[in-house]
Amino acid sequence: MQHTPQRRHRAALALGAALIAGAIALPGTAEAVGQLALNQHGGAQRHQGDQTRSIQQAIEKAGAKNVILLIGDGMGDSEITIARNYQYGAAGRLPGLDALPLTGSYTTYSLYKDGADKGKPDYVTDSAASGSAWATGTKTYDGAISVDIDGKPQQTLLELAKANGLRTGDVSTAEIQDATPAVQVAHVGARSCYGPDTASCGTDALQNGGLGSISEQLLNTRPDVTLGGGSASFEQTAKAGQWQGSTLFDQAEQRGYQVVSDADGLAAVRRADQTKPVLGLFTPGNFPTRYAPTTATVGGADEAPVQCTPNPARLSTGLSLRSLTDKSIDLLNRDRGKSGKGFFLQVEGASIDKQDHAADACGQIGETIDFDEAVQSALAFAKKDGNTLVIATADHAHSSQIVDSTPPTSLSTALRTADGTTMKVSYGTAAAGGSQQHTGTQVRIAAYGPGAANVVGLSDQSDTFFTIRDGLQLDEDLAALSRGARIDLSVGAPRPNQRVTLTGSRFAGDRQVRVQVGSTDLGTVDVIDGAATVQWRAVQGSTTVSFTGVQSGQQASKQVRVR
Amino acid sequence: MQHTPQRRHRAALALGAALIAGAIALPGTAEAVGQLALNQHGGAQRHQGDQTRSIQQAIEKAGAKNVILLIGDGMGDSEITIARNYQYGAAGRLPGLDALPLTGSYTTYSLYKDGADKGKPDYVTDSAASGSAWATGTKTYDGAISVDIDGKPQQTLLELAKANGLRTGDVSTAEIQDATPAVQVAHVGARSCYGPDTASCGTDALQNGGLGSISEQLLNTRPDVTLGGGSASFEQTAKAGQWQGSTLFDQAEQRGYQVVSDADGLAAVRRADQTKPVLGLFTPGNFPTRYAPTTATVGGADEAPVQCTPNPARLSTGLSLRSLTDKSIDLLNRDRGKSGKGFFLQVEGASIDKQDHAADACGQIGETIDFDEAVQSALAFAKKDGNTLVIATADHAHSSQIVDSTPPTSLSTALRTADGTTMKVSYGTAAAGGSQQHTGTQVRIAAYGPGAANVVGLSDQSDTFFTIRDGLQLDEDLAALSRGARIDLSVGAPRPNQRVTLTGSRFAGDRQVRVQVGSTDLGTVDVIDGAATVQWRAVQGSTTVSFTGVQSGQQASKQVRVR
Repeated sequence: MQHTPQRRHRAALALGAALIAGAIALPGTAEAVGQLALNQHGGAQRHQGDQTRSIQQAIEKAGAKNVILLIGDGMGDSEITIARNYQYGAAGRLPGLDALPLTGSYTTYSLYKDGADKGKPDYVTDSAASGSAWATGTKTYDGAISVDIDGKPQQTLLELAKANGLRTGDVSTAEIQDATPAVQVAHVGARSCYGPDTASCGTDALQNGGLGSISEQLLNTRPDVTLGGGSASFEQTAKAGQWQGSTLFDQAEQRGYQVVSDADGLAAVRRADQTKPVLGLFTPGNFPTRYAPTTATVGGADEAPVQCTPNPARLSTGLSLRSLTDKSIDLLNRDRGKSGKGFFLQVEGASIDKQDHAADACGQIGETIDFDEAVQSALAFAKKDGNTLVIATADHAHSSQIVDSTPPTSLSTALRTADGTTMKVSYGTAAAGGSQQHTGTQVRIAAYGPGAANVVGLSDQSDTFFTIRDGLQLDEDLAALSRGARIDLSVGAPRPNQRVTLTGSRFAGDRQVRVQVGSTDLGTVDVIDGAATVQWRAVQGSTTVSFTGVQSGQQASKQVRVR
Repeated sequence: MQHTPQRRHRAALALGAALIAGAIALPGTAEAVGQLALNQHGGAQRHQGDQTRSIQQAIEKAGAKNVILLIGDGMGDSEITIARNYQYGAAGRLPGLDALPLTGSYTTYSLYKDGADKGKPDYVTDSAASGSAWATGTKTYDGAISVDIDGKPQQTLLELAKANGLRTGDVSTAEIQDATPAVQVAHVGARSCYGPDTASCGTDALQNGGLGSISEQLLNTRPDVTLGGGSASFEQTAKAGQWQGSTLFDQAEQRGYQVVSDADGLAAVRRADQTKPVLGLFTPGNFPTRYAPTTATVGGADEAPVQCTPNPARLSTGLSLRSLTDKSIDLLNRDRGKSGKGFFLQVEGASIDKQDHAADACGQIGETIDFDEAVQSALAFAKKDGNTLVIATADHAHSSQIVDSTPPTSLSTALRTADGTTMKVSYGTAAAGGSQQHTGTQVRIAAYGPGAANVVGLSDQSDTFFTIRDGLQLDEDLAALSRGARIDLSVGAPRPNQRVTLTGSRFAGDRQVRVQVGSTDLGTVDVIDGAATVQWRAVQGSTTVSFTGVQSGQQASKQVRVR
């Protein structure tokens, strides 16, 4: 009888090979070395006996306190396998992604915006449309940032989480204005609308009556934690509105943000909330990747296989995606009692996509490994916390393919892997110097925690919005959330010329309120934890004060008599 | 409040579009048309509310009576998505594959056979090594049919199922000697060893002392049901052994097979068991595909999009993969009481791979749709039966990718889909006229029924062997299964020259026994339901009769005294 499967734990072996290969960071976990070689009967098994019970146990009733959504940009199954093969070996295990117990696939198509095909599927999405789908539950066109195909803004998970009293975070290795982080905090018709200087903003620009560039809208949305690249746009100067003439960095500081730009600055941040949200922008553009870039060429996979080398430009350890994830969780979870509200955090590994576009195998691999480390962080927290849903997925698949022989016309690279064998990676959707394309295949989605069963089977990426919304019990009705709005004065019976603080409260559904005192429009004021305050020098007579929620439309008015 | 997700059921719409598009067969299921358009909030959702409970209910304790394993050859996630988009639209649903409730991914790498890399991972498998992995639980080299990297035969699920008293079936749209069907019934070092005339059989050839070609071994393995193509090899003549000089078809008939070659012949088969197994070979080579082939060219996706047209060469409806699956289930399940043993059936849709190699988008799509129909059949039976595990997966991924713009150097084709929009499919791993390559990405595995939870998460394809072996409680120890072997005579006290039937029984672990009577070797005899019989004309004196199990090595001997 040979009924008991034996299992060769080979992560440690792969680790050994990786260390010998050099230039490879230590994987996050290591397993004991078992008995069987890969070529023996049962030697390549990943399971240890029947897993019916463990999968049963992994299914927890929906209704998490916290949700951490991790997006590997362009991380199709091929990109996952390439990174696993390289770093841990084919029989190895990505300690984050491969540890998520419940798994499925989702579809990622976008929709056409115009013409005869308006509203019909566009089979290859970009990161903007795909991100908008999970951020808002509404499918849209390539290039759209959380607006529908008619350009109408759609509420995002981050906005809703905030409106429902949760803390929020938005983290990326890209410019924070890049599509994936942007879809949670902004609504523009063209994803390129980064800052006030961007010409493509069109009617979204403040000076054209729009909601403003992505960077400006981010400041309005005011996540508790925002970490990434993209500081360049914040050096730009607002062209209209109440911050006209100030740089966005100045504006951020004036609005109470803790602005940090390096690892020490971030380490010094001890709290992040609506009073003092943290805005950490660590590079002018995107983060450098973990590994130095490789260049694929036609016939390249016939050359001697390469090993990835550390990228000297990489940011310090304190700014790795793992560190940013740890820090974000720490800040968002701080001082929250068992009965308190939770948080919603989105984390993106952006350069899997960007280096796949560039046919840079080592670049995309390193970013996948960095992303996997962030997944490990999220999972470790969720296991400890017991009430956190972790979802890891991609926004779309990409070009890179593992091939057996060097393709005759496509770009390719040969890599020496942790197994000590050669992996050939091909990029066949663009020529040298061109941008390799996204691809339209369904991609993997995996999860852990309450409600994780919603990723099993086939879903669409827009389902993810509803899984998170319903799991966190987020009310989409902003008007209802601000329905009890009211105005209070700091002084019971103000005298003429007395300084009075006007406080609008219970504006939970709003991020800003517009304040009108008599015939004077005082502009918009940030809502902090449901409340907005303005100073007013009292004027003799009867004055109508009104606060109008910018997002909810709810209005609170008060007649003030000064005598 | 907008908490209740509404869902637009659009399969019926996609069906409508498909019918308008013409040349598209009716999908197997249709859903009602709902309220929301794809571009509306929630309009693209696939789930209807939280699915925690439905996934919980889909998890059944391992231990199925029957297993149906369906292999879409070369059916990576990209191939699945291409077929769904084309036939049902991007928001549509493959009624078979997309209905399997539990899902995961598995790795598919093979191992190197020789040299310094012997035993190390080869990142892109062929169908032979991958099939051997799930058929035997042992990873091996490209080209190997259920032998390990040292050439040693490894027991297959079909052989073990048979040895454990289950009925067995092997179905494919390919030549039955092709790798995927072959891995369940044969053990050869080179997958090309189809028939006695194949030069590449080398030491596997009967005349060289081997186990014989795949076709000859298939006759020895004797599944209850074998359906597919590949009749050409059965026209060949055995070069050695006890059937030397006969064609394999003649041999099959002499050994009790019901040989059929067309739909009418198959329809007339009413039972299939070890006494009268059915061997249905309907084409000399592979089956023609559902749709007529398309030709991808460099720049091809810039041409007017094409719609797939029916292939005039396609076999009759009675020989579709769905029909063959239905017929196999019907035969294997017939006359089996609730307490009786079950069956193991493998079904392959072979030409997803073959037409992907040929950069033929319509060919691969049609085969995926045919395969999906077979999955529907299996699922319908399993739901009715309540004790059947259905697993659908691929042996490896392939080249085809859905792209946004026409790739400059790769072959491509534009297709007009059920959505009424254009899908561009690219093949970038070989030049025109060359064979597009398999790719090394992990692929989807999905299941329904008892033990289906074993596909969730990340596994290796060799895990599938253990999931099925343990689910069916198959004992791998053939010697133990034949341990009670004994010999009985039809006559208590035979007289000289009397015709006596010698019956070896309880040889469950064997498919053949070698019979020795005195100093005469009577050759091998098929074991039918554990028993093998030979006729003997009794000789005066004391004679030793021995039956030796060819697979188990167990021997039963009897001293016969004739006076």
